[in-house]
Amino acid sequence: MAKRFSPEKYVEGILAGDRVMLSRTITLVESRLPADQELAQEVINRILPHAGKSVRIGITGVPGVGKSTFIEAFGNYLIQEAGKKLAVLAIDPTSQRSGGSILGDKTRMELLSTNPQAFIRPSPAGRSLGGVTRSTRESIILCEAAGFDVIFVETVGVGQSETAVHAMVDFFLLLMLAGAGDELQGIKRGIMEMADAIAITKADSSNIDKAKAARAEYQNALHLYPLSASGWVPRVSICSALQHSGLDTIWKTIADYLKLTQGNGYFEKKRRDQNLQWMYEAVRQGLEEHFYAHPQVKQHLSDIAEEVKGGQKSAFAAATELLKLV
Amino acid sequence: MAKRFSPEKYVEGILAGDRVMLSRTITLVESRLPADQELAQEVINRILPHAGKSVRIGITGVPGVGKSTFIEAFGNYLIQEAGKKLAVLAIDPTSQRSGGSILGDKTRMELLSTNPQAFIRPSPAGRSLGGVTRSTRESIILCEAAGFDVIFVETVGVGQSETAVHAMVDFFLLLMLAGAGDELQGIKRGIMEMADAIAITKADSSNIDKAKAARAEYQNALHLYPLSASGWVPRVSICSALQHSGLDTIWKTIADYLKLTQGNGYFEKKRRDQNLQWMYEAVRQGLEEHFYAHPQVKQHLSDIAEEVKGGQKSAFAAATELLKLV
Repeated sequence: MAKRFSPEKYVEGILAGDRVMLSRTITLVESRLPADQELAQEVINRILPHAGKSVRIGITGVPGVGKSTFIEAFGNYLIQEAGKKLAVLAIDPTSQRSGGSILGDKTRMELLSTNPQAFIRPSPAGRSLGGVTRSTRESIILCEAAGFDVIFVETVGVGQSETAVHAMVDFFLLLMLAGAGDELQGIKRGIMEMADAIAITKADSSNIDKAKAARAEYQNALHLYPLSASGWVPRVSICSALQHSGLDTIWKTIADYLKLTQGNGYFEKKRRDQNLQWMYEAVRQGLEEHFYAHPQVKQHLSDIAEEVKGGQKSAFAAATELLKLV
Repeated sequence: MAKRFSPEKYVEGILAGDRVMLSRTITLVESRLPADQELAQEVINRILPHAGKSVRIGITGVPGVGKSTFIEAFGNYLIQEAGKKLAVLAIDPTSQRSGGSILGDKTRMELLSTNPQAFIRPSPAGRSLGGVTRSTRESIILCEAAGFDVIFVETVGVGQSETAVHAMVDFFLLLMLAGAGDELQGIKRGIMEMADAIAITKADSSNIDKAKAARAEYQNALHLYPLSASGWVPRVSICSALQHSGLDTIWKTIADYLKLTQGNGYFEKKRRDQNLQWMYEAVRQGLEEHFYAHPQVKQHLSDIAEEVKGGQKSAFAAATELLKLV
């Protein structure tokens, strides 16, 4: 690993918007070395008063929906038309590719990855969902302190990572494809329920009528959900990254959401709740990591687990037995 | 509390189908006294080889759907027509009523509660979801060992208790009302996704056409979900507890499910996975209970939590600080 600096040096660099120092600090956050972890926490605690001033947007969608192309187009729109500075982070714990992320393939975001107003950071490789979640949450703070005022957190629309992303963003955008009647396939229903907005992608040329039909269908489906505590009614729109159409509508939707929820106090309340939830989650992770790393537990876990699976030992008795080992 | 017996005495009583001893053991399971807990675990571990030979059916539905009336009718059908012995348990952590449960109101299940082939046990009062979940899982084992070969675990169709019930049953039945177009209201979508079958209740007299329309609508909606790993395609049927109609269809559905999943190994695999999941959950609960009961943690938690909520301290730093207290 590269040489380390004093906490002051990292803080100074980040606050000055130094992208190299930002990257280096994120690397510290992702490191498993206790010394790096300690240094990272020191930096984060110092930087915290300068963070929080962004809109955090979760973006998800199944493979094939055109997520990278959408982020490239929408990101460039935000930089050019709305004067924003954009950071793109990813949560992709399952990826085994080198680079560790769907964002690793930067050729898909050619413009964005070379734009000085944008900062793209792939998901760390080879980490559990819990590990990726933690480092992404802390990377958000670092990016905010470095002056990025829009944060995208992208994830792939399968598995549990959406729940993790939903718990760390202000606004959750679901990308969907217009299909042939069965467009609800592939995406888990629980994910639709989390969406503050749905954007139907690839609404161009011969596809536009299908996209409009899908828009009506989803709008209809969303009306069946109970109203969110925020008072916000999720919206559905269509867009084309190719033709750069519909991006303004999506940004307007997000702006309307912010206006509503910052006005009624929901935005602030949600962030406070997220902070607290994150603390309890970190405690739980810490307790479990410590427990399952204990030599006695490591030695006996698999035998006990076999007995439990086979019904020879009750789960609670097994847990009690394990807990007594420490 | 009533006097306690030796573990042998409880085990003997339960295996002989003694309902009083079964009740007493469940009371031990629900007790928070360490001595009772220890005794309960001893009994459960001895009884475990005799448990497992039942079909565990989760039943949920929003208030007003007629859950108690359905359970009364379906339960009596299973006893009379299928020769079953039925235990009805409940998970209802939010209930503040005396008796602690929707089942507390036994007048709603007049026939079932006096039938010697049935055993009805309300949810324990004043416990957290985690506590109720644990005692219900262990009560299932005790009821099975006492010879009950169908176990209903009922819960109210709101909140997180469905997920807990789903994780402890073989088959998940969702009761729904036929409404006027917006029948998906009130029930969370994630719950529909868990259902192995949906039964539209109150399909009698003037309501029958609406029920049939709802059946078609749900059947359609369920087709949009990805196929379950079990290979089972969820079914929708209509029934009337008043007219005792449709109960045979529901039982046939459950029998078909068992045939399929016991044939392809899914049934056994699911139970083994549930056992293991329950063990990890019990470890987690044990770790957290122990941690949050620590005097130092109790003393500092609320101050630290305030700092985290307000963004003065990072969640991870706070967690580290808390973990160091123990």
